[in-house]
Amino acid sequence: MTYCIGIKTNEGLVFASDSRTNAGLDNVNIYSKMMTHDIGDRTIIVVTSGNLGTSQAVYKSIEEDLKTQNIEINLNTCKNFEQIASYIGGLNIKHSSPQGMNTDNVLLGSTFLVGGQIKGQKHELYLIYPQGNYIRPADSKPYLVIGEVKYGKPILDRVVKPDISIGDASRCALISMDSTLRSDLTVGPPIDFAVFKKDADNLVALDCLNITDDTYSKICNQWSESIFKIFDSFPRFKWEKKFK
Amino acid sequence: MTYCIGIKTNEGLVFASDSRTNAGLDNVNIYSKMMTHDIGDRTIIVVTSGNLGTSQAVYKSIEEDLKTQNIEINLNTCKNFEQIASYIGGLNIKHSSPQGMNTDNVLLGSTFLVGGQIKGQKHELYLIYPQGNYIRPADSKPYLVIGEVKYGKPILDRVVKPDISIGDASRCALISMDSTLRSDLTVGPPIDFAVFKKDADNLVALDCLNITDDTYSKICNQWSESIFKIFDSFPRFKWEKKFK
Repeated sequence: MTYCIGIKTNEGLVFASDSRTNAGLDNVNIYSKMMTHDIGDRTIIVVTSGNLGTSQAVYKSIEEDLKTQNIEINLNTCKNFEQIASYIGGLNIKHSSPQGMNTDNVLLGSTFLVGGQIKGQKHELYLIYPQGNYIRPADSKPYLVIGEVKYGKPILDRVVKPDISIGDASRCALISMDSTLRSDLTVGPPIDFAVFKKDADNLVALDCLNITDDTYSKICNQWSESIFKIFDSFPRFKWEKKFK
Repeated sequence: MTYCIGIKTNEGLVFASDSRTNAGLDNVNIYSKMMTHDIGDRTIIVVTSGNLGTSQAVYKSIEEDLKTQNIEINLNTCKNFEQIASYIGGLNIKHSSPQGMNTDNVLLGSTFLVGGQIKGQKHELYLIYPQGNYIRPADSKPYLVIGEVKYGKPILDRVVKPDISIGDASRCALISMDSTLRSDLTVGPPIDFAVFKKDADNLVALDCLNITDDTYSKICNQWSESIFKIFDSFPRFKWEKKFK
């Protein structure tokens, strides 16, 4: 499996994705699932979960389309993020049903998160389904997750709101990722991590974090330790007083 | 779905179970999933997830067996908790394949957590599978969960250790339940909640908590608020300093 997070706050965007791929528990590998395109008038971040063959074919097509001259549509010619979502959705359908492959019994679908900003427009975040259609996040819960989404959802639900800073959103994404890593073997390091501040020319941060890296470990260790402090400060049950 | 938690620390046992049942999103109901037997030399707590018909039939059988005189096996005649787990496992198989029902296409399995103590023996916790066999929790992570287990697992993984008090284990169970309630519609209040202290004659606490009840809401609200304090105390990323 995989776990990818996209958060869109008023201040900007945060993306995080793990790097573990597996075809069964005994066939585990490390692949980056993030692609960034940070050129000219646009910054675009894509992360993906699902069938690795399909995801890689889509990324490869995106790169080839960028190199092809006089092509009708590529990441640079799309007029807005809805066109970008539609373009990636089209590639997703194309590559998830390659010629001659029976997709009735073999599910080859992939899911993508794509976000960023084109100069003069708003910053955007989309989730693209294996069927090629797409959604934006809800205004009140401005995040989208794909892959092994359940372990990391509670902390996002409690913390992510439109008005939190991209710093807090970044720390929340790393904790959400850490919770998932600890609870599920199919999600693993390193963590690709990208931060975009609204109206900036380039990405604010683009990192590949290992769990021993300072940036990652300081936040996650402090989180674990602080949880115990919260537990110390909780009110006691009436029945606990009898034992003391 | 359902979410049930069983925690076994050195000091005792904590059980929590939600009350929502659903057959599709448009057919939702409230049923208690907890059964307690706190009589004579033994305290036994059972919680269940899975097919409601099977779970109810098993509980009904347990109660009828207790009333039947000269019966070979019931909760009172079992010599230890392994026998209790085996007894419930047997009822589970019996009722999940009722005569004439085609179970090839219809999955009627239920899962149970059972724990407690028989005087003079150790306190115990078992998970009983739909197949009727059973396991005990790992020594290092002394908890078992059934049903919609993923949302609430990270907080259990971080907090539950053999040496925490049953008070902390209780608060952790309620937060784990609250995280699941908030993220998944198929898990809902009220929360049945039972606490047993090792070598005690009876349950220390047996409650049916609504989310507006003081016991529940104080802990869960304080948890939500404290999380934001942790976020305020986190170290900042280098790139954040540029914005200030």
